Amino acid sequence: NKNGFVDRVLTFVFEYDTPRMVLVRDKKVGVTFRLIQLGVLAYIIGWVFIYEKGYQSVDGIISSVSVKVKGIAYSNNTHSGPRVWDVADYVFPPQGEGGFVVMTNVITTPRQKQDFCPELPEAGKCQSNRDCEKGKADRQGQGIMTGKCLHYSANETTCEIFGWCPVENDHNIPDPPLLKEAENFTVFIKNSISFTQFRVARRNLVESINSTYLKKCIYNKVTDPYCPIFQIGYMVNESGQDFKNLSKKGGIVGIIIDWDCNLDWSVKFCRPTYQFHRLYDASKKERVSGGFNFRYAKYYQDTNGTERRTLFKVFGIRFDILVHGKAGKFDIIPTMTTIGSGVGIFGVATVLCDLMLLHLLPRRNYYKQKKFKHAEDKAEGKWEEDILSHSESLSLSGVELAS
Amino acid sequence: NKNGFVDRVLTFVFEYDTPRMVLVRDKKVGVTFRLIQLGVLAYIIGWVFIYEKGYQSVDGIISSVSVKVKGIAYSNNTHSGPRVWDVADYVFPPQGEGGFVVMTNVITTPRQKQDFCPELPEAGKCQSNRDCEKGKADRQGQGIMTGKCLHYSANETTCEIFGWCPVENDHNIPDPPLLKEAENFTVFIKNSISFTQFRVARRNLVESINSTYLKKCIYNKVTDPYCPIFQIGYMVNESGQDFKNLSKKGGIVGIIIDWDCNLDWSVKFCRPTYQFHRLYDASKKERVSGGFNFRYAKYYQDTNGTERRTLFKVFGIRFDILVHGKAGKFDIIPTMTTIGSGVGIFGVATVLCDLMLLHLLPRRNYYKQKKFKHAEDKAEGKWEEDILSHSESLSLSGVELAS
Amino acid sequence: NKNGFVDRVLTFVFEYDTPRMVLVRDKKVGVTFRLIQLGVLAYIIGWVFIYEKGYQSVDGIISSVSVKVKGIAYSNNTHSGPRVWDVADYVFPPQGEGGFVVMTNVITTPRQKQDFCPELPEAGKCQSNRDCEKGKADRQGQGIMTGKCLHYSANETTCEIFGWCPVENDHNIPDPPLLKEAENFTVFIKNSISFTQFRVARRNLVESINSTYLKKCIYNKVTDPYCPIFQIGYMVNESGQDFKNLSKKGGIVGIIIDWDCNLDWSVKFCRPTYQFHRLYDASKKERVSGGFNFRYAKYYQDTNGTERRTLFKVFGIRFDILVHGKAGKFDIIPTMTTIGSGVGIFGVATVLCDLMLLHLLPRRNYYKQKKFKHAEDKAEGKWEEDILSHSESLSLSGVELAS
Repeated sequence: NKNGFVDRVLTFVFEYDTPRMVLVRDKKVGVTFRLIQLGVLAYIIGWVFIYEKGYQSVDGIISSVSVKVKGIAYSNNTHSGPRVWDVADYVFPPQGEGGFVVMTNVITTPRQKQDFCPELPEAGKCQSNRDCEKGKADRQGQGIMTGKCLHYSANETTCEIFGWCPVENDHNIPDPPLLKEAENFTVFIKNSISFTQFRVARRNLVESINSTYLKKCIYNKVTDPYCPIFQIGYMVNESGQDFKNLSKKGGIVGIIIDWDCNLDWSVKFCRPTYQFHRLYDASKKERVSGGFNFRYAKYYQDTNGTERRTLFKVFGIRFDILVHGKAGKFDIIPTMTTIGSGVGIFGVATVLCDLMLLHLLPRRNYYKQKKFKHAEDKAEGKWEEDILSHSESLSLSGVELAS
Repeated sequence: NKNGFVDRVLTFVFEYDTPRMVLVRDKKVGVTFRLIQLGVLAYIIGWVFIYEKGYQSVDGIISSVSVKVKGIAYSNNTHSGPRVWDVADYVFPPQGEGGFVVMTNVITTPRQKQDFCPELPEAGKCQSNRDCEKGKADRQGQGIMTGKCLHYSANETTCEIFGWCPVENDHNIPDPPLLKEAENFTVFIKNSISFTQFRVARRNLVESINSTYLKKCIYNKVTDPYCPIFQIGYMVNESGQDFKNLSKKGGIVGIIIDWDCNLDWSVKFCRPTYQFHRLYDASKKERVSGGFNFRYAKYYQDTNGTERRTLFKVFGIRFDILVHGKAGKFDIIPTMTTIGSGVGIFGVATVLCDLMLLHLLPRRNYYKQKKFKHAEDKAEGKWEEDILSHSESLSLSGVELAS
Repeated sequence: NKNGFVDRVLTFVFEYDTPRMVLVRDKKVGVTFRLIQLGVLAYIIGWVFIYEKGYQSVDGIISSVSVKVKGIAYSNNTHSGPRVWDVADYVFPPQGEGGFVVMTNVITTPRQKQDFCPELPEAGKCQSNRDCEKGKADRQGQGIMTGKCLHYSANETTCEIFGWCPVENDHNIPDPPLLKEAENFTVFIKNSISFTQFRVARRNLVESINSTYLKKCIYNKVTDPYCPIFQIGYMVNESGQDFKNLSKKGGIVGIIIDWDCNLDWSVKFCRPTYQFHRLYDASKKERVSGGFNFRYAKYYQDTNGTERRTLFKVFGIRFDILVHGKAGKFDIIPTMTTIGSGVGIFGVATVLCDLMLLHLLPRRNYYKQKKFKHAEDKAEGKWEEDILSHSESLSLSGVELAS
């Protein structure tokens, strides 16, 4: 009936059930228990909450990078004569993305055209025509073999190829590198980031930077850690590499922009740090395939209308800007999850101390008796159980004796 | 012996131990307890499970973007005459990556060659040769100073440089911008994503888009939210910027493609949303280093065989496509972890109500007595404990009285 | 007073409270309880700890990719005659980034200049001048209409445009594709990764690869799974696509480099796996906007000084290298959180078995009595409660009878 149901609901609502406990006054167990509790508490508060910020939810970063390189280099090579190189000459790609290459050295092969010519000795040495399989291309070669074996020089004979002729000879890498002034080039890095979940947008031109400062500052990890203008030589050194070696044969420098933001504080303190890494580690393996270079060509038509090209083998320093970061902000979910897990870990203290209490201590049988009360299945009835169930039936008869 | 061991194992297996509870019928504590329990339950079910989807495991996104720009612009500049610009003229890089630049304005410096010429007045004003240090390059300059001070115009003298001559003069930015029609250019964005953990691959050409629709649709956040063809003017406006300003001096627009997928539903509902952001925030700082431009050059040889180049200072709108997203799917691990934490948090209710019951209520001593049973170390024996241990020894003598 | 306080603190420290339990010897409940406990234990140890490595903290990857393509193609087209293509001709962009295009086919439109010419029939058919709105550009058109309707061929009349003339006709895609040898081109992928949190840096040139091996190896998922040199045809096939189709109209291949590292082991076992995906799924939708192509141009001046360009519509295979991965390492925080949640889940066993014990079993009333002890609020006093409080007052009078 309805009344009875309401009664039961009220009984349920007004009722509170709490476990009955045995209070054990045993120094060993007591101290162990409190020590474990203290440890768990210290771990939860000190490590999980304060150090690992377990009360924060974390958001990943999205980022946009643009760069602008500045600087002028002067070379006076025996072949090409005096020449000045500016940004439009030495930056790839020109539009300034997060990954870009600053050319430091170059091997130029001018006036190539589609033609027949002998291969380089390294790629296509031959004794007779039979060594040059017609229509095939050697893995190191620069064209399709025609099947003929020709004189490359007075002493050497090489296979004739059809391809861009004359072939590129990249054995003598200019040393010193053509653009040795590249060390002093500067890179202006603009980085905009966003933590979408927290609706925070930042850029690496932080509050302390104004136009005046920007015009003359150069990044230095100690004195100017927020200046977004970087000298190439400085970055190469910081990455643990040597500019002279790198500029001759090329190489890779990783620029890591790290945003580690605690948004429980003012957003002003959300600032980037810059790190420079050689992306290839310095072990012996390094020798396998070091350096960085690529080829590209400029095409034109000569006065006869023949298509020609100038082939460039470009050695350069490739900069990879890797933006990395996360933001944390107080959030009820991780806080509660952490507390919940913490309360669970507190239970471990009881489990361990019960083990000690009921199995290791001399008076374990006494404690067992205090802790446990038996309620047996009649079918399994033994003598004690009968007694028990008897006393039980007594208590069921209406009078509970202090239990 | 073996039998005894089997017995003990059976006893262990068939045994169930459950805590003994005190049922307290106190309205205050009862209601407090149920309210806290209700709060925890509501929080776990409502917030953690339903709102934050605590029963799902989450996978990050990997993504590939390609774009195709379409549109034709017509300019009629006093210098260069009438001219039509198409995709091959105004998109950088041509292959259509996730980050690309649409040129909207350009300053052209034709027929440069390596030569000697006076610097611009802003970069290299001088009174006499002494002001021009030979072999040095000014930070704003365009070449290496030769040490001479020459007449730039009738009134002004500037340092002579060696470099690409004549030097670029970028002070008069064409206004209106040359490619004012860029506002109507369209960008077709193809985005393929993959949630590798869940083996789900999607593209932004969702099920509702067919060839016919694709040929005529233009993205509009209200009427056509899944059309992958975007008008540049629309994107610039949506990002909170003004196309006229942006097209003159260049700028950056971030396109965020957000995939927030609940894979417990059909994969059809996993669809992108598009947002457009000005990546540099609109504070005063904005004035520091606004706009977006870069330089590149086209090289050629004139009829005398001299290398020449046409230098372009390109102002454009750079679009950065940032793909962002995550997918959630039911997983037993986070579900169980969440439940486990939840059960832990339920324990908090008992802790708080016990505090109330044993320390705040008037009948706290009565409740304490009900809840706790003492089991003392004999060494610490006081009078009550003796009584206790006495009654205990009694109970050990064989008959338990209703406990 | 101070003494009393110290006493109380000592009492607190030396005290251990453990719940009093009822030991129920009921086969059904006992077995159920142990089975649930076993299940929870198996789940926590087997699944959460061993399979999902719940004892590890996880770090995301940052990565840098550079590529180098090698190979030579030979074409003998009726239009352009015999021609050899090398890397500088067919790779975009030349500097070898994570996303690059290998040209496999091309439509060349040479000697375009800014001029007046009739549109293609598909884009600009007209009956009379009225059909050609002056100053407008058709969405498919290649220039600005002048308002005239001209003869394109003997039968067809099209709108005259101003733009790059002659217009590009891209209807006949060369078949077989010009660079059919692209199938055998090789791509050398260098990938450096870093797990910054664990201070681990790796590259895909793992320990087992030396210079000798690198010179002759080709990736094969079974025999050479760590060789970083990939044949284009192999990658296309592995992605589930057909090279012949792809090379004609272009396409996209996703290269996923997956680093799934368990840093509790030696870092040597942290190695990449390579997967190849067609990024557009193979459903019917595929027909919408398939293929991959882009346009670019080479500019030059003819002998009269007129600016001309050669327009290329490049069909190619775009490779998107997506680096994906995570590293796990033992960490105390997730271990403790997992244990905490696990202990919480153990509590679920008690909850379920209590439900069974107190509501389902025939002797439930007996068990209820064993488990619960009533402590009533006097105001709510009923008869039993009075009895209880009476017996309570008795027990308060000094002698506890075995409770």
